[in-house]
Amino acid sequence: MEVASVADQKEAGMIFRGWGWLKAFPGKIISKVVEFARKTKKLGQDDPRRIIHSLKVGLAITLVSMFYYFEPLYDGFGVSAMWAVLTVVVVFEFSVGATLSKGFNRGLATFLAGTLGFGAHHLAILSGEKAEPILLGLFVFLLAAMMTFVRFFPRMKAKYDYGVLVFILTFCLISVSGYRDDEVLEMAHKRVSTILLGGFAALLVCIVICPVWAGNDLHNLVANNIEQLASFLEGFGPEYFNTSEDVESNNTLLEGYKSVLHSKQTEESLANFARWEPCHGQFRFGHPWKHYLKIGSLTRKCAYRIEALHGYLNTKNQTSQEIRSKIQDESIKVSSESVKALKELAMAIETMITPSAATLHITKSKIAAKNLKLMLNADLCKETDLLEVIPAVTMASLLVDVVSCSEKIAESVHELASLAKFKSVKPEVAARKPSLQKMQSYSSVNVSQSHHVITVE
Amino acid sequence: MEVASVADQKEAGMIFRGWGWLKAFPGKIISKVVEFARKTKKLGQDDPRRIIHSLKVGLAITLVSMFYYFEPLYDGFGVSAMWAVLTVVVVFEFSVGATLSKGFNRGLATFLAGTLGFGAHHLAILSGEKAEPILLGLFVFLLAAMMTFVRFFPRMKAKYDYGVLVFILTFCLISVSGYRDDEVLEMAHKRVSTILLGGFAALLVCIVICPVWAGNDLHNLVANNIEQLASFLEGFGPEYFNTSEDVESNNTLLEGYKSVLHSKQTEESLANFARWEPCHGQFRFGHPWKHYLKIGSLTRKCAYRIEALHGYLNTKNQTSQEIRSKIQDESIKVSSESVKALKELAMAIETMITPSAATLHITKSKIAAKNLKLMLNADLCKETDLLEVIPAVTMASLLVDVVSCSEKIAESVHELASLAKFKSVKPEVAARKPSLQKMQSYSSVNVSQSHHVITVE
Repeated sequence: MEVASVADQKEAGMIFRGWGWLKAFPGKIISKVVEFARKTKKLGQDDPRRIIHSLKVGLAITLVSMFYYFEPLYDGFGVSAMWAVLTVVVVFEFSVGATLSKGFNRGLATFLAGTLGFGAHHLAILSGEKAEPILLGLFVFLLAAMMTFVRFFPRMKAKYDYGVLVFILTFCLISVSGYRDDEVLEMAHKRVSTILLGGFAALLVCIVICPVWAGNDLHNLVANNIEQLASFLEGFGPEYFNTSEDVESNNTLLEGYKSVLHSKQTEESLANFARWEPCHGQFRFGHPWKHYLKIGSLTRKCAYRIEALHGYLNTKNQTSQEIRSKIQDESIKVSSESVKALKELAMAIETMITPSAATLHITKSKIAAKNLKLMLNADLCKETDLLEVIPAVTMASLLVDVVSCSEKIAESVHELASLAKFKSVKPEVAARKPSLQKMQSYSSVNVSQSHHVITVE
Repeated sequence: MEVASVADQKEAGMIFRGWGWLKAFPGKIISKVVEFARKTKKLGQDDPRRIIHSLKVGLAITLVSMFYYFEPLYDGFGVSAMWAVLTVVVVFEFSVGATLSKGFNRGLATFLAGTLGFGAHHLAILSGEKAEPILLGLFVFLLAAMMTFVRFFPRMKAKYDYGVLVFILTFCLISVSGYRDDEVLEMAHKRVSTILLGGFAALLVCIVICPVWAGNDLHNLVANNIEQLASFLEGFGPEYFNTSEDVESNNTLLEGYKSVLHSKQTEESLANFARWEPCHGQFRFGHPWKHYLKIGSLTRKCAYRIEALHGYLNTKNQTSQEIRSKIQDESIKVSSESVKALKELAMAIETMITPSAATLHITKSKIAAKNLKLMLNADLCKETDLLEVIPAVTMASLLVDVVSCSEKIAESVHELASLAKFKSVKPEVAARKPSLQKMQSYSSVNVSQSHHVITVE
């Protein structure tokens, strides 16, 4: 009896849970939909260029589809016209550089593979009917295997991965399908010209309507990453010495640098795309995009130090307020001068004006660092409990390390200033220029490769 | 006269240089070819699976091309058969997980978009001849714009980016091209079935012949990254205290951790692919792949500390040999115990045997760290010149930090051990098992997303 009642209870429990789940179902769906709408809105607000990009893609595809649709044009290209639609869908990327790179890859690879495929097909036909399939199969196998291996070369992978893929694809389509209708040459010609047409349409829409420049994004990203380091240092002093009042805003300052730690791949792909772009805005032809990677790598090195420093925020309670207050002034001086230097460097990159005061701030920061060290030497070692002092000493040392990292960033930004021929304007004059203010306001960086949304200011 | 002679000299110089360039040209080409051959050999030697993968791709494409080539089969599918070739080229990836993920994305997206495209086409026809092109254009525009925006969602981008692309593509091809021949349904059916065929062929070759499992790669990568941290700590002591003899091998030990710093994206994409894979080898269905990301993130945190510690190798000369020798024994004890713990953790992941001694080593390392702190307290603070001591104190603190990071890694590996049901074998027994030795030798990790080649041991 008892067993039965337990079973009954279990069943009743299951029914009850099932009913509860069913009742909660509409609510769950509604909350999911609301969540989705909220995320969609946020994505659009974070970077309105995403909405524009989506509309641009819709426009380009519709344009090319209509081209396919209307009779007189259709007669010229036939079913091959779908290659144009396909090309637009595949080639249209977020930034002009990425679109150019993909379009170029696709165009050149199709042309080369078309030529080679025609040659292979011709050779196979010459060899007689029996040898033909064997020869064709051999060609396809060798080329596909070799080209697949070529994709493993790091340099090829970074720049021409898509091109190699299209090369294999077109070669197979042309050489093998050629067997069918003996109109290989016409087919190759059609494929090349429709792809050119699709690529051209994609490029046109991409460049003419609100273009997104990968170079501009890289430029802003690098400047913004330096700014993030400055933000951390700005928030660190008040947090460590308990002088901060607004905890929440301080936390935002302190966490921003984390996106810098993982920015390597994004920077590299943006630099890759930027090289494809023609001169635009402030950027002349041959702008030293590669040098941004150097600055980026130094910024990351500094961010690693800051990550270690961040760990010392939690150890602050191991050191008494008294000891901390002894090094407070000099520590805050060190960080605030570094903040000024880093902020000026970030601003210098953004506005493309040679930084004038950064070196001075770095020097001041280095002097403060020296004083901090002397103070550690003079005051702290008289303490009886050194265990309390050790975390403070380490914190101070890491802070001093950050200064030397900032110095390297400053050097590298100065190099960029001379390579990219930054303007030399006195800071007072610069602040007054309205156009520069405008430039700064346009600094929301979106990068299609990364999922972080980074907004300057 | 002089002007003329200067011009003559210039011209002569140019000719001379041009001639020199021409003479050097064949040599340059030869050296390029040699360089290329050397790189190719190295790529193949670093990971022979690359060569096998290339041959597999060649085989799959040839198989499907031949399918297209032979008459009786051709009659069934017609020109659409080229979609099968296209699918193989596009879907075939290095690992089984990536191929499955792409194949599934392509298959499902084609099916859904085919259905929707047919519906849109039907709706447009019902609306009358005049409204048809307008309606079709509107459908294409809306769908392309919406789907392009969906690609910005981080989660969609990580898992279904390719699927969304294929969805847009198929929808446009079916709905617009349908206008042409009124055989939309047949076309949609053909496209779906040829794509299924191509995807099936690609999967078959990918899984049957020497499969590469993304899960296995992730597993080895995470273990190897922990091993790299251990290697650094192993080399750090001798380098800092000048007791190392073999400088070159020490440098390799010290630089290995750098690849860990940038491993985030690689780990994430491998974990993404691993989830698609069926159970294989040691990995059961529902293996906790997500947990590897947690271990990976803790490993990276430790690597950031190590990067800071690495910076202190250069400051060693600021501290006299005498002071350094005072903390030498304890520092080396701290790092050597951490090395033992980390190596056991790495080995535990690789062999899937619950680590037994790691906790003990961590405890020993923590005791040594405490002693080190006491020693700093007792001995160093009597020094008159504290400026010399500060770098040593910082170094020691960072070393202690690394220990606490290692502790977290150890906890996380223990969690993995219980989640993934690692075997519990005593270490002595484990060392004797021949199968485990074999497993270790197969630990060259290749990741198609990253350009680093990581080899364990």
